[in-house]
Amino acid sequence: MDTGVRRYDGHEGHDGRPLHSLTLHALLEEHRRSRPEHIAAISEGRQLGYPQLADRVMRLANALQDAGVTRGDRILWLAQNDIGVLEGIIAAGMLGAMFCPANWRQTADEMAFVIDDLEPRVIVWQSAEIGPAVQAARDKARHRGALWLALDGDGPGSYEHFVAHGPLAPREVNTDPDLPALIVYTAAFDGRPNGAMLSQTAMMWQSLALIDIQDLSADTRFLNSGPLFHVGTLMVTLAVFHIGGSNVFIRRTDTTRIAQAVHEHRCDYAFLMQSLCHELVALNHDARYDLSCLRSASVSPEWDAMVTVVPARSLFGYGQTEVMGPVTWSYYGWGKSAGRNGRTSPVAQVRILDDEGRELPPGEVGEICVRGPTVMHGYWRRPELNAQRQRDGWHRCNDLGRREADGSLSFIGTKVQMIKSGAENIYPAEVEGCLRQHPAVADCGVIGVPDATWVHSVKAIVVLKPDAPAVTPDELIEHCRARIASYKKPRFVAFVDALPRAANGALDYPALDAAHGGGGYPGGLTRGA
Amino acid sequence: MDTGVRRYDGHEGHDGRPLHSLTLHALLEEHRRSRPEHIAAISEGRQLGYPQLADRVMRLANALQDAGVTRGDRILWLAQNDIGVLEGIIAAGMLGAMFCPANWRQTADEMAFVIDDLEPRVIVWQSAEIGPAVQAARDKARHRGALWLALDGDGPGSYEHFVAHGPLAPREVNTDPDLPALIVYTAAFDGRPNGAMLSQTAMMWQSLALIDIQDLSADTRFLNSGPLFHVGTLMVTLAVFHIGGSNVFIRRTDTTRIAQAVHEHRCDYAFLMQSLCHELVALNHDARYDLSCLRSASVSPEWDAMVTVVPARSLFGYGQTEVMGPVTWSYYGWGKSAGRNGRTSPVAQVRILDDEGRELPPGEVGEICVRGPTVMHGYWRRPELNAQRQRDGWHRCNDLGRREADGSLSFIGTKVQMIKSGAENIYPAEVEGCLRQHPAVADCGVIGVPDATWVHSVKAIVVLKPDAPAVTPDELIEHCRARIASYKKPRFVAFVDALPRAANGALDYPALDAAHGGGGYPGGLTRGA
Repeated sequence: MDTGVRRYDGHEGHDGRPLHSLTLHALLEEHRRSRPEHIAAISEGRQLGYPQLADRVMRLANALQDAGVTRGDRILWLAQNDIGVLEGIIAAGMLGAMFCPANWRQTADEMAFVIDDLEPRVIVWQSAEIGPAVQAARDKARHRGALWLALDGDGPGSYEHFVAHGPLAPREVNTDPDLPALIVYTAAFDGRPNGAMLSQTAMMWQSLALIDIQDLSADTRFLNSGPLFHVGTLMVTLAVFHIGGSNVFIRRTDTTRIAQAVHEHRCDYAFLMQSLCHELVALNHDARYDLSCLRSASVSPEWDAMVTVVPARSLFGYGQTEVMGPVTWSYYGWGKSAGRNGRTSPVAQVRILDDEGRELPPGEVGEICVRGPTVMHGYWRRPELNAQRQRDGWHRCNDLGRREADGSLSFIGTKVQMIKSGAENIYPAEVEGCLRQHPAVADCGVIGVPDATWVHSVKAIVVLKPDAPAVTPDELIEHCRARIASYKKPRFVAFVDALPRAANGALDYPALDAAHGGGGYPGGLTRGA
Repeated sequence: MDTGVRRYDGHEGHDGRPLHSLTLHALLEEHRRSRPEHIAAISEGRQLGYPQLADRVMRLANALQDAGVTRGDRILWLAQNDIGVLEGIIAAGMLGAMFCPANWRQTADEMAFVIDDLEPRVIVWQSAEIGPAVQAARDKARHRGALWLALDGDGPGSYEHFVAHGPLAPREVNTDPDLPALIVYTAAFDGRPNGAMLSQTAMMWQSLALIDIQDLSADTRFLNSGPLFHVGTLMVTLAVFHIGGSNVFIRRTDTTRIAQAVHEHRCDYAFLMQSLCHELVALNHDARYDLSCLRSASVSPEWDAMVTVVPARSLFGYGQTEVMGPVTWSYYGWGKSAGRNGRTSPVAQVRILDDEGRELPPGEVGEICVRGPTVMHGYWRRPELNAQRQRDGWHRCNDLGRREADGSLSFIGTKVQMIKSGAENIYPAEVEGCLRQHPAVADCGVIGVPDATWVHSVKAIVVLKPDAPAVTPDELIEHCRARIASYKKPRFVAFVDALPRAANGALDYPALDAAHGGGGYPGGLTRGA
């Protein structure tokens, strides 16, 4: 019997029948036709319409292909914010390759590590501001095969020259959006970062969620003021592109350039930390910049007078680079939610699992796990880590969370060693979070001290606020007893002046254990996050 | 070199590693956890929370599996609106099967055709109101193997009994959202309807677009007042489900039941034709129903006093069942668009192609073609038609359209035979559309009359409005000359009292040709639409 059923064929790649395929390049070609006179990007004073951007990306992809870039290859971006990041991601997707916007704030040693880890075929680098670090990294790196293109200038050897000389004629392109096309380094558990590989499918699903949540449209003018090597800014860049809006790029977070860009290009949306808002208020004391087009939740009366204050769409959530950003949002609060991190987005599934992969009921703390189209395809060249983080059909976030009775999520903390009290599990992060709510506590770490009967006793190492009134161990223990299950409360409290911390700011638990008698933890859990 | 690249594995089906999979069932299981106390559906006075709906769907899928339903099988719904339609689509997806909500307004012969065309393993049928037609269809159909379940009642042999006795324990389910899970009959080109097979992926992408466009949220209470066998209502049902809102079902469009449901269940959204709004105003003359929760664009002052009038989100677009509804929307007007049908949605690509698959430039009329995740997997058991409609990676809509200079789309008409004027193509639908804009024209058909020099002369056969002032052929020709390219204007105009039409209402062009000297058309085009 011929059922007439045709299988989804978007996955067969170059088969000439991509009936169900949608890619970033396809969106760009659609924008070329749907929005022929609309501004796609403003970058370093240059304004590009969607047809111009589509031409540039076509030339770039063809030039990359002629330079030998093919499926699975990497393109490394060692430069600051620029339209080239968006162009590079789309072009990489056309070739089945992967584009990596690296952290330009890194040291030369860290950049050299990324070069050797990625072994990119092409590197775009920037001389201004970060040139010495990049040059030193180039000298240090063992990987020698890359084509280096300078973002500065437009002569031979520059990115601009490379793009301008790429052929414009369309070629057959990759139509499989499920291949990874983006690598973002993150998750330096053990000191070295790992590159999360994200597909075009992951980007597009997250974009569709963001378009609704952040109220994006073709009229949006998004100021890319945050770094594009972070998913927090990059996901919005991609969503604004997806819906046909305009991305305005400035090289990096800089108060004056932000004010100039908002004033000149009428940006209505940007990520601005509260401290930056205060700087903008101070900078603009003489009202030389018209910032009224920016829509924003209220920060201060001075700020309100300067921007368009709109009702806050609370955008707090839980997520990580490995799942293309947030997977829960307070936007999905549906009334007031008990969990601080809102509810699951319409493009993900979230579970709280124990180490054996069993789902935990509401109220119990376990590892936050995610499944769905936004989940990464693993870390680049980390098969052991991938096997650890992605098993049984779930991506393990290496973070602890709790599903509340009303279905919302609370992020509890990063996943560290577990303290056992009899058969019960105690997560230090949860006890620490409770202690931090006490007005006298400035900082704290919680460890397990071996106990002959109960495996562990909980011990809290506490730094008090200098100006806080005196507090006794019993008062802190009582504070915890009132807020978390009794078996989780500290049995011992020690006061110290400072806690040992690693270079990345994370609490140094081994040092804490050594100094305060901790140890004897059950195995099987990854340290740090 | 181990790149650590893991291929997307959602397509491997029962592989136990559906890391990137998202399905309707997965959404339901997420809602079970995220919205444990939220109303999923109200149907026939019964209110179901998301956990209850999730349990019912689990039982239904298991019962269907125990009844022999497996991958590729069909389930036919010969009944009116009910929560069972949503349950059935989700359960079918779990089994890799397909659910078909059939038109219950059909005659017994038409229902019998669908039964024999689908050869479903299970049929849910309704006795109330449509029982006689269904019984007659059952007798007429050659297909005898189906399990018939009655929607009415809850005793043995009923749908309710079947669901209630399905095992609740989870089983391994299909995790491939790209398999077709829904069949909607449409497109009766030649008198018999064809079943468009749509995947869960198609439904979910369209839902994500609709959530933004129609401002849907978990707070939405959507009144399913239109028929669920039409994609226009069903796509909203699915989108409301996707975002965790509440679907309120009434059996069918009925003014009193609509008023009751809005009043009782505080529905804020519904599809209501303008005539229905006027009926509701008349029905509610004594204000017995509180309809103020309904949000609506303005219809009349009386209506405004009854409902919450919100700024209109103009929802006009272009689409068809075969692509899961609209693929362009006036919502994406980005300013005022020249084309009546707005711009392409963020989940589709649209092209205007000629018969050889070449893209036509803006301003030229060709066939509207679509590519992307919402495109159907073809018509059920119509391999020849599928080969015609889906080729070179594009779904051909069998409709004519034009991309305007500003990138927006104008739907011109259904695709019929083409008239040639020298090397130029003339589409009768375009000329007819122009003629219909004349105030004196009630109806018209345009044909090609063989011409020795130009291949064809255009001839318009016109029905005038009875009360219209007199109009001459020259005036109508001049009317067209002012509006469309001169070579498209009619050279001859004939006035008639009525046009020949087929049973489905379509103009009978062969009859028109025979009566008015038409003929000699170039081949290669599908007749009708």
